[in-house]
Amino acid sequence: MKKLLLLAFALPSLALAQPVPDRAAALRDAALAGDTLAWELVEGLTTEVGQRMAGTQAEARARDWAVRRLTELGFANVHVEPFDMPVWVRGEERAEIVSPFPQSLVVTALGNSGATPARGLEAEVIGFDNLAALEAAPDASVRGRIVFVTHAMRANQDGSGYGPFGAARRGGPSTASRKGAAAIVIRSIGTDYHRNPHTGVQNWAGGARPIPAGALTIPDAEQLQRILARAGAQGRPVRMRLTLTPRNIGRHPSGNVVAEVPGTDPGAGVIVVGGHLDSWDLGTGAVDNAAGVAITAAAAHRIMRAGRPRRTIRIVLFGAEEVGGLGGERHFSLHRGEGNVVLVSESDFGADRVWRVNFNLAAGNAALADRIAALLAPLGIVRGADRANAGADLGSWASAGTAAIDLGQDGTRYFDYHHTPDDTLDKIDPAQLRQNVAAWTAMLAAAADAPEGIEAAPRAR
Amino acid sequence: MKKLLLLAFALPSLALAQPVPDRAAALRDAALAGDTLAWELVEGLTTEVGQRMAGTQAEARARDWAVRRLTELGFANVHVEPFDMPVWVRGEERAEIVSPFPQSLVVTALGNSGATPARGLEAEVIGFDNLAALEAAPDASVRGRIVFVTHAMRANQDGSGYGPFGAARRGGPSTASRKGAAAIVIRSIGTDYHRNPHTGVQNWAGGARPIPAGALTIPDAEQLQRILARAGAQGRPVRMRLTLTPRNIGRHPSGNVVAEVPGTDPGAGVIVVGGHLDSWDLGTGAVDNAAGVAITAAAAHRIMRAGRPRRTIRIVLFGAEEVGGLGGERHFSLHRGEGNVVLVSESDFGADRVWRVNFNLAAGNAALADRIAALLAPLGIVRGADRANAGADLGSWASAGTAAIDLGQDGTRYFDYHHTPDDTLDKIDPAQLRQNVAAWTAMLAAAADAPEGIEAAPRAR
Repeated sequence: MKKLLLLAFALPSLALAQPVPDRAAALRDAALAGDTLAWELVEGLTTEVGQRMAGTQAEARARDWAVRRLTELGFANVHVEPFDMPVWVRGEERAEIVSPFPQSLVVTALGNSGATPARGLEAEVIGFDNLAALEAAPDASVRGRIVFVTHAMRANQDGSGYGPFGAARRGGPSTASRKGAAAIVIRSIGTDYHRNPHTGVQNWAGGARPIPAGALTIPDAEQLQRILARAGAQGRPVRMRLTLTPRNIGRHPSGNVVAEVPGTDPGAGVIVVGGHLDSWDLGTGAVDNAAGVAITAAAAHRIMRAGRPRRTIRIVLFGAEEVGGLGGERHFSLHRGEGNVVLVSESDFGADRVWRVNFNLAAGNAALADRIAALLAPLGIVRGADRANAGADLGSWASAGTAAIDLGQDGTRYFDYHHTPDDTLDKIDPAQLRQNVAAWTAMLAAAADAPEGIEAAPRAR
Repeated sequence: MKKLLLLAFALPSLALAQPVPDRAAALRDAALAGDTLAWELVEGLTTEVGQRMAGTQAEARARDWAVRRLTELGFANVHVEPFDMPVWVRGEERAEIVSPFPQSLVVTALGNSGATPARGLEAEVIGFDNLAALEAAPDASVRGRIVFVTHAMRANQDGSGYGPFGAARRGGPSTASRKGAAAIVIRSIGTDYHRNPHTGVQNWAGGARPIPAGALTIPDAEQLQRILARAGAQGRPVRMRLTLTPRNIGRHPSGNVVAEVPGTDPGAGVIVVGGHLDSWDLGTGAVDNAAGVAITAAAAHRIMRAGRPRRTIRIVLFGAEEVGGLGGERHFSLHRGEGNVVLVSESDFGADRVWRVNFNLAAGNAALADRIAALLAPLGIVRGADRANAGADLGSWASAGTAAIDLGQDGTRYFDYHHTPDDTLDKIDPAQLRQNVAAWTAMLAAAADAPEGIEAAPRAR
């Protein structure tokens, strides 16, 4: 009796739901139950290559690894799209409080940081609670000093703090430079409490002269705040010796690795998915972004093994994302004129479970979106109301009017590890990785086999 | 009705319980509700001094800091018991896989490690699952190689894994040396998954020649295991370049800082409590052991402010504990002949809550033990059946027949931070720190004011 009642209540919603494509559902369930390929790829890339900083020999080894593995897996048209890029590499990194409380702090250089002399530079530290406070400070208060900027970023599920709090990294160095600072150190843009600094790219804006620019770990940033408070209460200045000796080493090769699952209908267009192959140099780039490489490749591989899909699925493992999205721009400029890409989607937010799907599909694709949402719901994935943007490497396509789908991952832990030495394989949960593969397999299968055309929603003016 | 029944059931156990000393209970509750001194001391020591490696200028600054703070707090007889000691200091530290998968690993030298040449040494790596496997290996398999020893330590509440798993650190280097290894790296003796290595002391036993001896972080140790497995499957040796350049810099001063709460009855004996002032050099020694310094000093301070206790309470902040308990041995050898120490107790297991009390008291002190246990029970502290040993710095007293009480702290997180760069103030929970101060205040007040004599249980033969 109880069962019957439950069924009666359940029927109306089932009746309203889109029919789920059987093949996509079966592929989804198989991935969730037993995918091992994504883990094998993440482990392989992070173990056999490790860090793979853009434009370095390590990134070249990663391309070789990827070409070999994608070929072994049976993908078609495996090749590299090479390009050159300017390369910045890390040097020595030390920060020491000279007075009044001598001690070392843990620091790392931000991308494109200027260099100190080999023996470091010593100056008084001036602290700011956030970037706005630095911007508002008189130049005279900053000139010749080491600027310290802190912030109050907290972990959240959608990672939306990274935009506003990340401004201290993206904009702090240029602002400090324009005000005449000797150097800048920021509180790492992150949410953990470990002594692993978060690096990340920044660019010298508005003609700002490069100065040494580093990130303290979060425990060290809070230590410096306490040092400034206690020294200030005693009327004593805080002096720091900062040593950062990165170098610009000229132009070197990078590249995107491309592979395809050929479709049966050349006129139905191409779906482009992927992640980025490069990583920052401090960890092994497991979360950022061996995971995205592995999830998208494993999902496409499942579809390929089940029989050719209608549409070609193109996997692109982008080079040089971390230093400014160079690989994504390269791929877009090479292929935008071909007019055959109908859908883009990137995985670049770690390896924790997908919790939300967002679409940028035309109204005429409502049924496709409903089918995909219905396929994802059993994985605990909700439907969001945001417009999909396809991430750093494929966002140019979405901005230019190509349809996009975003499988949003749980970012609660993401900024604990992002761009740190702690981005290593042990941070990946195999069960959540499988859920990602299941979500991607379902979405890709439904999209690749969709009988209707795929188009983006018209852009708001 | 329900209330009356509960009361009826409760009465028998209340009737059996020891009467709780009112003064001790009131002091306990005040500490739990509002102690701020322990936090202020931990913050002060870790901020104004930071790391304080034994025998260095930093440890000397810590003694100055402690003498000043204990004097300011009104303790009596504040002084330093100086001694000299041999000092080993850290140098450069790098580990790189040269082939077949070139990448850097994070390593730190273990105490008393030998040095590599300045440019490092390169050798093939041979891995062992544990110390026993290394011990069983033929010398020829180890000779000239870099030995890697891993282990399977897991977190637990009483920290009892440290003894057996720590053997890889204490005994691994000497064993590797005797077998002719070029160097040894172990998996850090710890339970975390962050790229912060755990250092710690080891001594060259049985005439073993010093060789370079380091600890990899746990993520790096697991990475090396994967590298060995994947390279082994391909039939390729793993070669590592290891650079560790520590130095022995001769004898330098250390010392114990002593302070007292004078008792009213000189014939009632002295209670000695404390923690250690020195720390390892990688973190700021917040958990290990600014916390113990602060907890014991704050508890003694509360008792002092409430009026002189019957017995003198002596606080000893030991020097040079980490490198072999030199300060504890020094204090014991200086004072054992005085014959007036009746009870010893150390706080040296972090800052998380006290969960268990163990005693080493004579049968005639059963009522005292019951009173203390009753005072601690409202803090969630259970009574254990182990014999108290008074910790690394006061254990000599307990071994020699002095009564001892151990307030055992929850060690679940302790080996996540122990001896790492991550041992910083942010790891201390202010509420749990207050619970520690409350427990220590209650125990010390009850013991210091106990009308009966205090004696240890007879030693088993």
